[in-house]
Amino acid sequence: MKLTPSQIDRFREDGFLILPELFSPAEVAAMRDAAAVVFAEDDPGNIREKLSGEVRTAMGIHLRHETFARLTRHPRFVEPAMQLLGDDRLYVQQVKINTKAAFEGEIWQWHYDFATHHREDGVPEPLALNLHVFLDDVSEFNGPLYFIPGSHKHGPASTILDTTTTSYPLWVVDRDTVARLAGERGLVSATGRAGTALIFGDTLVHGSPPNLSPWDRRIFSVILNPIANATTKAQRPEYKHHRDLTPVAALADACLLAAAPVAAE
Amino acid sequence: MKLTPSQIDRFREDGFLILPELFSPAEVAAMRDAAAVVFAEDDPGNIREKLSGEVRTAMGIHLRHETFARLTRHPRFVEPAMQLLGDDRLYVQQVKINTKAAFEGEIWQWHYDFATHHREDGVPEPLALNLHVFLDDVSEFNGPLYFIPGSHKHGPASTILDTTTTSYPLWVVDRDTVARLAGERGLVSATGRAGTALIFGDTLVHGSPPNLSPWDRRIFSVILNPIANATTKAQRPEYKHHRDLTPVAALADACLLAAAPVAAE
Repeated sequence: MKLTPSQIDRFREDGFLILPELFSPAEVAAMRDAAAVVFAEDDPGNIREKLSGEVRTAMGIHLRHETFARLTRHPRFVEPAMQLLGDDRLYVQQVKINTKAAFEGEIWQWHYDFATHHREDGVPEPLALNLHVFLDDVSEFNGPLYFIPGSHKHGPASTILDTTTTSYPLWVVDRDTVARLAGERGLVSATGRAGTALIFGDTLVHGSPPNLSPWDRRIFSVILNPIANATTKAQRPEYKHHRDLTPVAALADACLLAAAPVAAE
Repeated sequence: MKLTPSQIDRFREDGFLILPELFSPAEVAAMRDAAAVVFAEDDPGNIREKLSGEVRTAMGIHLRHETFARLTRHPRFVEPAMQLLGDDRLYVQQVKINTKAAFEGEIWQWHYDFATHHREDGVPEPLALNLHVFLDDVSEFNGPLYFIPGSHKHGPASTILDTTTTSYPLWVVDRDTVARLAGERGLVSATGRAGTALIFGDTLVHGSPPNLSPWDRRIFSVILNPIANATTKAQRPEYKHHRDLTPVAALADACLLAAAPVAAE
């Protein structure tokens, strides 16, 4: 799968792409089955909400379930990533499902991923791409990501470490900066049917509201980073930044479907 | 001002009406000037956020500022209310601005107003109408009201008193009921430009998310209730349910504009 020139232009301009229903209902069903398995595990990669104790993030899941091992190497993720980065030697930096349980899911403060990748993991440059697929329909009501379009163009914004708002310590962007960036081009909420994919870069400022609705919101995420730009610090747990720098190779397009061959043809 | 038959039908079916830009920019400017005055007051009717201490709700403001005294008797509120209730003897039950400060405004849990009006104030029947006007543009990003359309048709849902989630004790609807009601017709977020008005009934289930955006969200609200259905308990402060049962008379349509005559012609 290749992105079109206009998709690439839009990515450079906005800092993100929304790809409606990139994965089929059958593929999403396989992801949901696998999600139920990993969420039920008592695993240190399952990080729970501060208030409710529900799983907020399940990490390292490509090492915990074959479906996520395949999804991490899915050509609809890997090929656009290689294309956008102009680099076919990428490693799997992080693999997770961020969930927002109905009525319970809490916010993610305004942040961009490179603040953490750089400070915590010693990643030199903001090159990593975050590739998402929705396991549930995502609407304005169940905690979509909010993107600040164009915010990646200003270079990494200044950040402060917030260890109190939620259970997950996060380098967050200060309010004056958010107000200035959002004042230019507004905010965009990344919504769509289950199977919809997102691609966004390492300095795009984003956040997300809580889920007040009666509908769960689960999103799978894989971060791919050039091996030439790999982590230089190993202070966080392995499931937050993997040390295995094996280059990712795309599998076959049908790799998530039960009877399909796994290897690329 | 009269509602059209199709607006009345929609109100009966959905439980609410959204009236885009019912008030002009000049009228909204007058409301904003008045809001700045009442928010700056040290008044027991100014209820503050649990976390930030910012004003969350400013109550009794028709007794604190002439602009809100007039807005409470504005014909674009009073005449539709009389029309929907088939009753021209209404009293001013409550007058407030609910604000959600940029970055700070917290949620309102799922609730309907009659639960509080009945239990706390001894109002016999769910007849009161809640009439809103936006002092700011309200989008999906700055904490709009979420309505469950048709939820008023099921009669008052069961409720429990929540005294912990925010600074404002509230009789809230349980999650199973919210899930069942929202499962029928989904959710609607009440958004629009400043000056947009809302009318909704006493058993319509609604809630609202926090304001993560850099944009304030202020909404004026007046609750009008038939005098024949008046409060029978005076346990809450006067600013939460006024005891003055003087019938409301509509002023002139231009009453908010500085040089205009106040009395109806």
